[in-house]
Amino acid sequence: MKIGIIGAGQLAQMLATAAIPLGMKVHCIADTMSDCAEPVADLFIIDHTDEEGLLAFAESVDIITFENENIPTGVLELLSDTKPTYPPMTALATAQDRLYEKNTFKELDIVTTEYHDICSKAELDSAIKHIGLPAVLKTRRFGYDGKGQAIIRNQKDADKAFEALGKHQLILEEFVDFDYEVSLIAVRNGRGDFAYYPLTLNVHRNGILRQSDAPFEDTELQLQAERYAKVLLDHFNYVGTLAIEFFVKEGLLIANEIAPRVHNSGHWTIEGCVCSQFENHIRAICNLSLGSTKLKSRTRMYNIIGSAPRLDELLSIPDAHVHLYGKEPKPGRKLGHVTLTDNTHSDFEQECQRVHDLLNEKVNA
Amino acid sequence: MKIGIIGAGQLAQMLATAAIPLGMKVHCIADTMSDCAEPVADLFIIDHTDEEGLLAFAESVDIITFENENIPTGVLELLSDTKPTYPPMTALATAQDRLYEKNTFKELDIVTTEYHDICSKAELDSAIKHIGLPAVLKTRRFGYDGKGQAIIRNQKDADKAFEALGKHQLILEEFVDFDYEVSLIAVRNGRGDFAYYPLTLNVHRNGILRQSDAPFEDTELQLQAERYAKVLLDHFNYVGTLAIEFFVKEGLLIANEIAPRVHNSGHWTIEGCVCSQFENHIRAICNLSLGSTKLKSRTRMYNIIGSAPRLDELLSIPDAHVHLYGKEPKPGRKLGHVTLTDNTHSDFEQECQRVHDLLNEKVNA
Repeated sequence: MKIGIIGAGQLAQMLATAAIPLGMKVHCIADTMSDCAEPVADLFIIDHTDEEGLLAFAESVDIITFENENIPTGVLELLSDTKPTYPPMTALATAQDRLYEKNTFKELDIVTTEYHDICSKAELDSAIKHIGLPAVLKTRRFGYDGKGQAIIRNQKDADKAFEALGKHQLILEEFVDFDYEVSLIAVRNGRGDFAYYPLTLNVHRNGILRQSDAPFEDTELQLQAERYAKVLLDHFNYVGTLAIEFFVKEGLLIANEIAPRVHNSGHWTIEGCVCSQFENHIRAICNLSLGSTKLKSRTRMYNIIGSAPRLDELLSIPDAHVHLYGKEPKPGRKLGHVTLTDNTHSDFEQECQRVHDLLNEKVNA
Repeated sequence: MKIGIIGAGQLAQMLATAAIPLGMKVHCIADTMSDCAEPVADLFIIDHTDEEGLLAFAESVDIITFENENIPTGVLELLSDTKPTYPPMTALATAQDRLYEKNTFKELDIVTTEYHDICSKAELDSAIKHIGLPAVLKTRRFGYDGKGQAIIRNQKDADKAFEALGKHQLILEEFVDFDYEVSLIAVRNGRGDFAYYPLTLNVHRNGILRQSDAPFEDTELQLQAERYAKVLLDHFNYVGTLAIEFFVKEGLLIANEIAPRVHNSGHWTIEGCVCSQFENHIRAICNLSLGSTKLKSRTRMYNIIGSAPRLDELLSIPDAHVHLYGKEPKPGRKLGHVTLTDNTHSDFEQECQRVHDLLNEKVNA
């Protein structure tokens, strides 16, 4: 079985690493021949406008998936005419547009933030009156890692934000002064089997995920999140792994966004669960039995952002599992992650602190 | 860091899979471009007699290791003149020759079977008188998976065995009617740090490893095995992973053979321990801190020999981790392995039985 992945970043690298022991080969559409997936996949540089190249790629594989939602739906449409392509395009199109995303939440009775579609400064001013301040102005499309959004606390912020973002389609969202940010990773295969990972507590800084802790133990919220996930997966007739990010406020889940792919907040499942989000995505798109999402031990993941500590310093921490993506250091860039598992050593918190300190000694993170 | 591996079979595949998340790249000397390591390494077909090719390979990497002891020591000698090459050649040379191996055990006061060097039929007959019957006649070199050996129970067997094997250098060994076969995987890095995995109980059939169970719980034998391992690792000034196979008879460890490499009886460490034998081999040869060898849960590994069951049948077993090597089915060939871990589901024995049954439904195993 040959799996084609649109994209060749770290998510493709980890997907391929999960696919290979199942006897599969992976081809990726890459930006450069040194993309992260290079060691574990055959890379092909194909422009999104190169129909012939895309069709040849589709011909060369059995199943197609993607690692990034910032791809034109037209590309997916073209590929899916040739080979089974998962997750489905409707899920991608919805995740690509914050307005569609919020509308879908609303339609499916999933609690989400208040929001307004913004096409003009006048609409922004009016929306602010409805939603109140603070609020968050976001581009509907192509935002990631906190890019393309601005918090509005007063009229001056509103003017500035619209000036900066007004050339894009926008959405104004209620600012949620949340207690926690959590995410749920869910999987569905073509047979309609479901699997849900334990809720993960996420910590962002400057819009970038820094730390994920699993499990976020709250039986009621776990079940509520799984119910929401099931509704979404069924709605899209979804096949693959889906991540849903929630705010938690006063014991309530508020859906923030979805990612129709494996997700940074699920990297800890490689060591923390019986079957990782990566292997389960592969299993799902190949219509195989889903793997167990059972937790093996309490787990914490830290992202390595901007620059990495000396490898040996990380490796000297007994419960640390190091994942480097093979990227050049650059401020704000995700270079890798470290996962700590608590099943074997007693000084878990100390070890976590050590990793945290090593990662924060670097100034350009 | 670029690691060169002599050999590109499943052990190289699993070594590369462990090396990549540490930010390393792997080049392998392969027999064919479809060798098992192909998805995770750059393969180079270089004949062992092609000095120029071997030197160019050595130039292209930072550190060299091997996955198989059936390589000429001359190749290692040549490569090690160019780049650091581990484990050391003396360990390889010893492991390649059952006589050297036994002599080393004896020299280091490691209990082993009684044995005699055999250069003629007369020596065989005389050795049988000393050792008694049954005894095992083995080629000194190039035996694996039970090949190149014959059990001698009577004079007729002796004549037949010498006729079959007499053109090779031979060794006659006492036949040990053992209670168990166990193995210890040990690791040493260049700083002289040591790590030992829990003893593993191994089951062979027709000379091929079928099943490994860890841990083999016997504190005294564990400590004895670790003492023996330490003596061997120090003796060779060893760097890398070393496997030692023992017979257990009446509570006593009897060293049978060593393998200066990662070992089939340690595949379970991928899921069963904090840091696998593969990652620890990579860490050792790169002179990095060794990873924790702590057991995460009781674990059983089954080899997939000859032909594989339907992938989905294996994947439907919650605690089964499937590793396929990407080889064509062939009677007696190791095509993959399945590891079951006991940390999350209560019906471990039932799941193991299911895997066992699936693997044994195949007639040409």
